[in-house]
Amino acid sequence: MSLVVVGSVAYDGVETPHGRVERMLGGACTYAALAASFFTQVGVVAVVGEDFEAQDAEFLASRGIDLAGLERAPGKTFFWAGVYSEDMNERTTLRTELNVFANFQPRLPAAYRRQPYLLLGNIQPGLQRAVRAQMEAVRLTGGDTMNYWIRETREELRETLKEWDVLLINDSEARMLAGCHNLRQAAQRILEMGPGTLVVKRGEYGAILFHPRGHFIAPGYLLEDVFDPTGAGDSFAGGFMGHLAGCGAGAEPGELRRAMIYGSVMGSFCCERFGVDRFRTLTRAEIDGRFQEFQSFTAF
Amino acid sequence: MSLVVVGSVAYDGVETPHGRVERMLGGACTYAALAASFFTQVGVVAVVGEDFEAQDAEFLASRGIDLAGLERAPGKTFFWAGVYSEDMNERTTLRTELNVFANFQPRLPAAYRRQPYLLLGNIQPGLQRAVRAQMEAVRLTGGDTMNYWIRETREELRETLKEWDVLLINDSEARMLAGCHNLRQAAQRILEMGPGTLVVKRGEYGAILFHPRGHFIAPGYLLEDVFDPTGAGDSFAGGFMGHLAGCGAGAEPGELRRAMIYGSVMGSFCCERFGVDRFRTLTRAEIDGRFQEFQSFTAF
Repeated sequence: MSLVVVGSVAYDGVETPHGRVERMLGGACTYAALAASFFTQVGVVAVVGEDFEAQDAEFLASRGIDLAGLERAPGKTFFWAGVYSEDMNERTTLRTELNVFANFQPRLPAAYRRQPYLLLGNIQPGLQRAVRAQMEAVRLTGGDTMNYWIRETREELRETLKEWDVLLINDSEARMLAGCHNLRQAAQRILEMGPGTLVVKRGEYGAILFHPRGHFIAPGYLLEDVFDPTGAGDSFAGGFMGHLAGCGAGAEPGELRRAMIYGSVMGSFCCERFGVDRFRTLTRAEIDGRFQEFQSFTAF
Repeated sequence: MSLVVVGSVAYDGVETPHGRVERMLGGACTYAALAASFFTQVGVVAVVGEDFEAQDAEFLASRGIDLAGLERAPGKTFFWAGVYSEDMNERTTLRTELNVFANFQPRLPAAYRRQPYLLLGNIQPGLQRAVRAQMEAVRLTGGDTMNYWIRETREELRETLKEWDVLLINDSEARMLAGCHNLRQAAQRILEMGPGTLVVKRGEYGAILFHPRGHFIAPGYLLEDVFDPTGAGDSFAGGFMGHLAGCGAGAEPGELRRAMIYGSVMGSFCCERFGVDRFRTLTRAEIDGRFQEFQSFTAF
């Protein structure tokens, strides 16, 4: 194992213009871990309820994901349901039932603590900080957050961010965190808060990597059909961190750029089927083929 | 001269979060011709009223733009006024006074008819067609249109498009013309209508070039400050066609890609000052410097 992923494992109900699924495996940790598993050995830290199905644990294990950190607690697994608009640019949350996730206290198995790469999914910043403090020899920490924590726990979040190498958030979160609309100015302010690198995800428009010496823009992949965008951002984070872990990289500019493309590749595959289904059949050859496609449609 | 630009020359009133200008030189033809003038010799075909100021004609002439096709008609010049939202992603039209532009009948001076490059700004499709029919040896025709013509004169527009090499429109226009939301599918349908190449402009997110053998994605330049986005899309078209005309190119894939970047460069400079002001001081060295920047923030 080399990458520890912390966050939510959930069941999701999703409706898009292409169809509807009442209940399927989801959660940020799930998407990120699956995406990363194509690049490196992954261990997850998450909590599920008594209703978590054996076949879902088996699927994660079949991708080589270590489940020693997957706690089973009395009660039900986190459940989320949402519906996407006709053009899929907006989604409305129909239900959020935190269930066992409400009391999630991440506990890292001893073997996890010695791993060099850590991806902190979107949970309470204090918990993210506590997890990182348990890591004994972490080389690179990446983390996500959301508008709720930016608004409600701003100071705690800022303390937490100081220790991260990479902050991965979407554009509206970056604007909110920096308190400024212009993305380039917002990025400058966020880098001054501590993280050495900022990745701003822009949905279908791709992502931008900012560091003190400049930036790199990765366009979004143009899919013929977007079946379900749920989890695309988390799959991006998994591909990004997975690539760095897989090649033992730190924050070298060239490797970060390739990580951006692998992140984009994994986010694009994620959208091709409902939920995590695309990761059931995806191959490394398909991933590398799409990486090549990115080269061919961006070179000039 | 090598590039003929047809369209509106206007006065604009613009308000953005950075300030307000009551009346300044504007119009699609103006922006496109100015942007193209950094790459090639340009001639304009447009109509202005008796209120058109000598200093504005002098500025265009100072950029080497041929004004033999700039007709002066009794009445007032086309006037448009609009206000941008705080984040500049939306603009509201406050006034549109077509004035002499309402009866615009493009007349090409004899010398214009032998030129190899033609850029047809957004005017009635029948007029665009009539202009192209007057060109005797055109090598490459690019053109723009808008939602109004797509809705009101769809059949005439489709006849017109058949003769174009490059259609340059924004993403919402592409979706409307194709009748489909997915951009990749929309592009496929539009290419089947006739134009050999489609350029879809996506504002701050850049632009995509589609042709039957594939596509190329140019990201938007990340400006520190957007003063006034008015004319950015027309400046893109001018930079795009200007580059092709300047190097005597046809629709070769490599040249089209570089034209996309030069278009993006000119659109980005346009936003740095109100109206056309940035083009008063811009140099070719600055343009080439920004082209290099595009290479440095997209290469991986």
